Amino acid sequence: MAYFPAIAAPDTAAASAARQRQTVLTKPPGALGRLEELSVWVAACQGVCPPEQFTRARVVVFAGDHGVAAAGVSAYPAEVTAAMVANIDAGGAAVNVLAALAGAGVRVADLAVDVAAPQSPSIGAHKVRRSSGNIATEDALTPEEVVEAIEAGRRIADEEVDAGADLLIAGDMGIGNTTPATTLIAALTDTEPVAAVGRGTGIDDAGWARKTAAVRDALYRTRRITADPIALLRICGGADLAAMTGFCAQAAVRRTPVLLDGVVVTAAALAAERLAPGAKQWWQAGHRSTEPAHSLALQHLELVPLIDLGMRLGEGTGALVALPVLRAAVGTLASMATFEQAGINT
Amino acid sequence: MAYFPAIAAPDTAAASAARQRQTVLTKPPGALGRLEELSVWVAACQGVCPPEQFTRARVVVFAGDHGVAAAGVSAYPAEVTAAMVANIDAGGAAVNVLAALAGAGVRVADLAVDVAAPQSPSIGAHKVRRSSGNIATEDALTPEEVVEAIEAGRRIADEEVDAGADLLIAGDMGIGNTTPATTLIAALTDTEPVAAVGRGTGIDDAGWARKTAAVRDALYRTRRITADPIALLRICGGADLAAMTGFCAQAAVRRTPVLLDGVVVTAAALAAERLAPGAKQWWQAGHRSTEPAHSLALQHLELVPLIDLGMRLGEGTGALVALPVLRAAVGTLASMATFEQAGINT
Repeated sequence: MAYFPAIAAPDTAAASAARQRQTVLTKPPGALGRLEELSVWVAACQGVCPPEQFTRARVVVFAGDHGVAAAGVSAYPAEVTAAMVANIDAGGAAVNVLAALAGAGVRVADLAVDVAAPQSPSIGAHKVRRSSGNIATEDALTPEEVVEAIEAGRRIADEEVDAGADLLIAGDMGIGNTTPATTLIAALTDTEPVAAVGRGTGIDDAGWARKTAAVRDALYRTRRITADPIALLRICGGADLAAMTGFCAQAAVRRTPVLLDGVVVTAAALAAERLAPGAKQWWQAGHRSTEPAHSLALQHLELVPLIDLGMRLGEGTGALVALPVLRAAVGTLASMATFEQAGINT
Repeated sequence: MAYFPAIAAPDTAAASAARQRQTVLTKPPGALGRLEELSVWVAACQGVCPPEQFTRARVVVFAGDHGVAAAGVSAYPAEVTAAMVANIDAGGAAVNVLAALAGAGVRVADLAVDVAAPQSPSIGAHKVRRSSGNIATEDALTPEEVVEAIEAGRRIADEEVDAGADLLIAGDMGIGNTTPATTLIAALTDTEPVAAVGRGTGIDDAGWARKTAAVRDALYRTRRITADPIALLRICGGADLAAMTGFCAQAAVRRTPVLLDGVVVTAAALAAERLAPGAKQWWQAGHRSTEPAHSLALQHLELVPLIDLGMRLGEGTGALVALPVLRAAVGTLASMATFEQAGINT
């Protein structure tokens, strides 16, 4: 099932021009370290050197509940998901504060929050269902729903790019969502549950044991289909994760760079890279969270995070703290004087 | 010789209030990781919770030449120092671009650039001498000059704080300056030169051998006085390094937080902590550079850098890339909704 067209690589001519320009700026070659590599990547994604500073970075928070929360895998009750969607809509969440500081816009989309009516019609415009199934005992989604959710993510990416987004960030909000994310990563990287399961929102040892049991049970139900990312999203994912998968892949189709966030988004990205090989060329890892499965997924995607500050909040917050690093990369390549402009003979 | 008054600790009541406030914000406790610790530190430095966002962050670039450059320890000729001071004054250097992005002001001060006339009267207002001595063979400064340079750094810190600075960053500009910085760190941490010397602006193996020989020769001349930071700054430092030392210590006297940059600034900070014990409570390490001596100094100061991006440019650039992390810490503590405000029962 070829959902996505072949992914084109970022522009190599712009990358070469960026590498060349880095050698004539007023600094020793290589002295900006990783910023130089990032600047080359942005130039390649934009197809122009020097690259332009991001003027419309957008965070989309994909919200959804998970039946597996009933198994006691989270430190919070499921009702918190809807309350946090309202908090994000009202501008009070961490993602709002960090997006304002980083100069990004925020949108929250209810894919599968367990409420009868979405927070608003626009927030619920792409809703797939109320909560996803309890993956410890049942499929998260029906075959129709998983396709619907992937398509919802694709449409959201298209909407954002069509509205002028020049950088996309996916965030997550959903009590229990690190359980399906961890299961997906374990399945896609062939990892034992005990090596993948983390503390999520901050569960205790008994909670960790319950979560690990849920992941193990869900993994068992995927044992025959580990090579099919759509089947995995259906069995042990959820509508929010499937939508993020479509979103990350479609961003690459639309040649729009993505800054990945934590374990939930990166689980979806890992599925997206399987669905649309090469999509990862359009992504950078924003941060490294404390979740073991996040590091596993990053390693498999061969992405090295920009920051590592022990964050584990989700919502896109890790990517937003990393966004200024990307702006610094673009700014230095675009705006520093060259040796010639500064009249310096080296 | 007690140059500095006893350093007061940041405010513990504000720190307690900040720790408490972190527990009622709409996120799991601890989920913002290092940002939470940083927010507590800023609240303690400001003596108020929630802390206020930095509105007048200031970078001071301490410029100076070093006679040891004649020993072939740098990839660039000494004339580049003066040219880069002009470039910074004109706004074309990396520090200018990154400061604009991070919302900080930039000032460059000529402490010991090897030019007959400073770039401007204000840039040269605190000048100590033309170049510092070649530490491989002679003292960097006279006993009078080292005191004059420390006092210059103190005055600069006072000027900035008196003008309203709420966060200070020291940067460095000077061909050859990682050689005295490395020597200082090796002396203050009792480290062999081969374990401390790095590539600076990008020297080759032969250059590294020359640099290591210069550090070894300078260290030999300090063998009897490793416990006296002022004597070390005189013998194997320089006017720029001594001024940065005064600046970092005086910032602590003035209860103003500092974000440290790379190996040169951190060498000065290490000396400042010896001169004014406890000053480090007012500092955070902005980044980790590729210089081995930088990591040695950070370890001795017990400071863990905020970012690690392989940068090695100086000028304050690493601290400026880290500044948004500090802003994110302040912003989340100050502006996120509490559970009560969001109507969430946990």
